[in-house]
Amino acid sequence: MPDNTTTLISPEEMQQRFTFILGELGFTKERSQAIAEIFTNNSIDGIYTHGVNRFPRFVDYVRLGLVKRDVIPVLRHKMGAMEQWDGQQGVGVLNAIHATETAMQLARQNGIGCVALSNTNHWMRGGTYGWHAAKAGFAFIGITNATSGMPAWGAIDSRLGNNPFVMALPYKEEAIVLDMAMSQYSYGAMELAVYNHEKLAVPGGFNDKNEITNDPSEIMASKRALPIGYWKGAGMSLLLDIFTSILSGGLAVHEITKAGAERNVSQLFIAIDISKLDNHSLIAKTLDDIIEQYHQSIPADDSKKITFPGERVLQNRKKNLANGIPVLKKVWDQIMEL
Amino acid sequence: MPDNTTTLISPEEMQQRFTFILGELGFTKERSQAIAEIFTNNSIDGIYTHGVNRFPRFVDYVRLGLVKRDVIPVLRHKMGAMEQWDGQQGVGVLNAIHATETAMQLARQNGIGCVALSNTNHWMRGGTYGWHAAKAGFAFIGITNATSGMPAWGAIDSRLGNNPFVMALPYKEEAIVLDMAMSQYSYGAMELAVYNHEKLAVPGGFNDKNEITNDPSEIMASKRALPIGYWKGAGMSLLLDIFTSILSGGLAVHEITKAGAERNVSQLFIAIDISKLDNHSLIAKTLDDIIEQYHQSIPADDSKKITFPGERVLQNRKKNLANGIPVLKKVWDQIMEL
Repeated sequence: MPDNTTTLISPEEMQQRFTFILGELGFTKERSQAIAEIFTNNSIDGIYTHGVNRFPRFVDYVRLGLVKRDVIPVLRHKMGAMEQWDGQQGVGVLNAIHATETAMQLARQNGIGCVALSNTNHWMRGGTYGWHAAKAGFAFIGITNATSGMPAWGAIDSRLGNNPFVMALPYKEEAIVLDMAMSQYSYGAMELAVYNHEKLAVPGGFNDKNEITNDPSEIMASKRALPIGYWKGAGMSLLLDIFTSILSGGLAVHEITKAGAERNVSQLFIAIDISKLDNHSLIAKTLDDIIEQYHQSIPADDSKKITFPGERVLQNRKKNLANGIPVLKKVWDQIMEL
Repeated sequence: MPDNTTTLISPEEMQQRFTFILGELGFTKERSQAIAEIFTNNSIDGIYTHGVNRFPRFVDYVRLGLVKRDVIPVLRHKMGAMEQWDGQQGVGVLNAIHATETAMQLARQNGIGCVALSNTNHWMRGGTYGWHAAKAGFAFIGITNATSGMPAWGAIDSRLGNNPFVMALPYKEEAIVLDMAMSQYSYGAMELAVYNHEKLAVPGGFNDKNEITNDPSEIMASKRALPIGYWKGAGMSLLLDIFTSILSGGLAVHEITKAGAERNVSQLFIAIDISKLDNHSLIAKTLDDIIEQYHQSIPADDSKKITFPGERVLQNRKKNLANGIPVLKKVWDQIMEL
């Protein structure tokens, strides 16, 4: 059994530690701080898998030269409200923030703006860019492709990526943010269930006999995660891959997978400037009504509140800002040695 | 047991019959032909539920004044590459084609174009607009909201719409078109399974004891269809509703549901002009490679080919153009009496 002891780390301490490590790696002060802030914020929001837990691997990738430290994205082609950028194999989170802000700027000028980004690296948590755009007043759609880990519908080999899909928009002082991969469960979530000797709540993949199962260890062995909605999520995964790779001129899932490590991914960012809408003064009221109606849903379990995408993130954020961020002790020990 | 006898109707005969009926209803010749063509094409493509089978209900809605016969969409607000239009409660399929073509025109000028459409009616089959845009050389995203028929995740009452989502782009002389609702099965598909005394292939909803089931009659009774990917599709449905209603300034699912008949829906159309991309001469090759890799998936059942979204539509189209469109005899009898 792995040691799942956690320790509480304050956001300030985490961000300082990350900034220090990145500085030692040779990142400029400004870029160290920006990267450290994103990894820390993902952890504050409770997305540890793409925050603190992932930081050591990010450092490895920089050391191995898989993530190029000092490059910045380059504009390759502009066609009005849409631009194609080359991420130059740089830092995924910085490239993605840059692309998000560029899409926002295009939207300020044109109502809608779109950036397709090739040759970039893992953006960690798609929600980061949804929150970023939504808090600035934009509706946002973001897509990334990835290495393969799911079968086409009816297939026994895994050729589709989980290709996360993000939709976000402002709500009160915060945001509503959907951040979902095309697989029912991430491999991280299945790993955790194996550790805890738990079955998955709903079927999560296939076993070696091509049967759908909720046994996470069987799915880890077959490496065939279940697409959400079976044939539907499989189809959507393919379209998300095609949109990101074709529109950016970057690599598709099969090429990323062939290369081994997950790098040189393709992404798409669409922003719409809500302040430019005809009816923008009425939007807050309309959205309040939608969420109020949604919250009036009758829960199957009285103790469980019906939440909208992003609502539990806000609860995590509040708790972790107040109490500190719970970090696996073995992970923090590793980070202290980086 | 219902009578499921079918009869073969040629595309020409179907389109002529629809055009005639619409003319009798007072539609102009041009609009009669355009509507008849869409309903016929949906039937040729095998989407009978939103083609020939749905035509009588469309006629009813026109007669009842729920669909206004002669109105055309009105531009309410322009902000560069994005426009907001009011569908004026007109014919859903004509409004949606108009919005698609407007988004395409905006994309020709700006790389990307977006139309948000309020106060429109059922677009029948989302794929119609995906095929339309893709065959003209555009990448396309389309969204509509709808009346409610699915529960929020953890809820026992149904407050979410199935809110179909479309992604399409050109492929060879045809297109790749994903056209999917947020429910695992449509109520039409479940009705058919009940008729045929069949269980659903995968779980499709809840029974009255709040258990997930693949018994279509139990789901028809509870009126609680299962969102694709459980909590994921439920979340995406909410976001699709918010995007369409907020960006168009139109009605949200809870308001459409309250009004009874499914009308005054809100839609979103995004087009990207692929011919304007930097690398557009390479796109065909890149896409060929992706589909070739995809088709190399190893099928679990050797007799079943792995198909991409839209591929089986092409097979239906070929077959129905050659042999005639199979129509339920009772449906065609009804149409002959309209």
